[in-house]
Amino acid sequence: MEFIKPFQQAYQDFLDRNPFQKEPRNLYDPADYIMGLGGKRLRPVLLLIGHYLFDENYQPALPAAMAIEVFHNFTLVHDDIMDAAPLRRGKPTVHHKYGVNAGILTGDVMLIQAYQYLLDLDKPQLLPALLGVFNKVAIGVCEGQQLDMDFEKTTLVGIPDYLRMIELKTSVLIAGALKMGALLGGSSIEDATHLYEFGRNMGIAFQLQDDILDAFGDPEKVGKKVGGDIAQHKKTFLYLKAMEVATPTQKSALQQWFDQLVGPEKEEEKIGQVLKLWNEMGIRQFAEKAKDTYQQAAFRALEQVQASPDRKRILEELATELLVRES
Amino acid sequence: MEFIKPFQQAYQDFLDRNPFQKEPRNLYDPADYIMGLGGKRLRPVLLLIGHYLFDENYQPALPAAMAIEVFHNFTLVHDDIMDAAPLRRGKPTVHHKYGVNAGILTGDVMLIQAYQYLLDLDKPQLLPALLGVFNKVAIGVCEGQQLDMDFEKTTLVGIPDYLRMIELKTSVLIAGALKMGALLGGSSIEDATHLYEFGRNMGIAFQLQDDILDAFGDPEKVGKKVGGDIAQHKKTFLYLKAMEVATPTQKSALQQWFDQLVGPEKEEEKIGQVLKLWNEMGIRQFAEKAKDTYQQAAFRALEQVQASPDRKRILEELATELLVRES
Repeated sequence: MEFIKPFQQAYQDFLDRNPFQKEPRNLYDPADYIMGLGGKRLRPVLLLIGHYLFDENYQPALPAAMAIEVFHNFTLVHDDIMDAAPLRRGKPTVHHKYGVNAGILTGDVMLIQAYQYLLDLDKPQLLPALLGVFNKVAIGVCEGQQLDMDFEKTTLVGIPDYLRMIELKTSVLIAGALKMGALLGGSSIEDATHLYEFGRNMGIAFQLQDDILDAFGDPEKVGKKVGGDIAQHKKTFLYLKAMEVATPTQKSALQQWFDQLVGPEKEEEKIGQVLKLWNEMGIRQFAEKAKDTYQQAAFRALEQVQASPDRKRILEELATELLVRES
Repeated sequence: MEFIKPFQQAYQDFLDRNPFQKEPRNLYDPADYIMGLGGKRLRPVLLLIGHYLFDENYQPALPAAMAIEVFHNFTLVHDDIMDAAPLRRGKPTVHHKYGVNAGILTGDVMLIQAYQYLLDLDKPQLLPALLGVFNKVAIGVCEGQQLDMDFEKTTLVGIPDYLRMIELKTSVLIAGALKMGALLGGSSIEDATHLYEFGRNMGIAFQLQDDILDAFGDPEKVGKKVGGDIAQHKKTFLYLKAMEVATPTQKSALQQWFDQLVGPEKEEEKIGQVLKLWNEMGIRQFAEKAKDTYQQAAFRALEQVQASPDRKRILEELATELLVRES
């Protein structure tokens, strides 16, 4: 993704110039650690692109990009505690490296620092609008995480519930990043809202793509074993759709596999059997169709944005590349 | 404290009209639970009094009072997890009642909601100043909690370190509440700053008073057993001062008691022996003197505030009552 490199570089330079590196170190070292773990920096890059659509000098928007990325990393730190996850990007999670208390408190101070970056923008006339978008997104992300945890404990999850959960948990932040960037770049409220819709739909499409790749991707290209969601009984779109369309016989065969706790020696068989049943039912096609629907809604929203087609092309290319990657 | 009743009532009415009561319930029920546990509501009351000094119609400041109280309760939820505390105001802590994950996530959404209340004030021209005070206070509170946890694991704590810790952990929020109320009431920056200094010094005096009462208070009036801090080896002002002024013989006698893990049957003896040594050294007098110094600094700051002496008297009376209570 060569075309987003300048945005990634601008963000990285800003991050490198602004480490926390403050006292008390036990509070800020874990924050610097998680911020340094890398990743594509998709959210701050989207914020900068949102700005670029309306004003190509996106340097003044860097503190807002930082607010979004610090917020995102705060959610990673706290979610990893809640999910008891040992690894993040191949490295120990914050609470595994520094302890649960450090994870809680560092996450808290990162969330506050995210708001401080919005203030550091020094755009008082835009502050109420930016804070409004940011708060709505941040509350949505918490609600999405709660729904995700709730879904683990109930069988009564419908596809609309699932779509709402992934919208809140992952796509409103992407959407909010674009909208905040646009507002900072001087866009109209209408254009900022269209960009939000682009991001919201694109985020849902990304998550559906993730669900598809987990079950049907090429392990070499995806970079991980196929079927992890099946092994963990995750209620993904694929699982929920299968339960919806299965014949009684198929349903009881599926249920049998999902009700069993199988050891590692039978895991491969279980994944294979579930995939065989899903293939019979055409589950991948259902998921691809849903993904396409969101993707098209995203592109329709982008079309409505009054900005130069040349600049909008970056977002089209980015979305297209992310949505065909490794499948 | 009859004279603060109208402020307490105004805050309580606002809280009653604004429960979270939203979906998902597993996220917001714990928030309503902790907000409903009561307490004196000192912080929101101080915010309203800060407003009242400059404008007696303090109704428009209620969302800011709510921001401060929701923030304070967020810190209680997360601190109780970190301290593994089973009880808060005589009731189960949030994480004991709903689980640690619920405690983490509910705390997070409360912190975000606190910012939303600042936006709900609908005072765009004051938003940057209010957000600046709030962020600085919120970051200070996290740093104070970290220092408090750090101090448990080190013997190298000096009295200035301790005073800085209690300033951050408890008094900047009191100070910030007064300052935000004043700014909302239309005060000058100078007056808001004097009020901040009043609150900051008063908060430190309160904490020193707490330390004193824990060791020397009348158990009937304080409402709890004397010597809890000694039993828990807490590095309070009294402990640190004793270590500073003890003769070598006194120091080794103290050290012996503090190095020992004593069972409940010997706890009373330990507390008694430590108090006997502290009395020999005049530790209570040192602490009272430090408390008086901060109290006087607080009153000097309040004198400089350009507001009607009649209205300022509420703060003087409140501070005086809080500082002589139950001793």
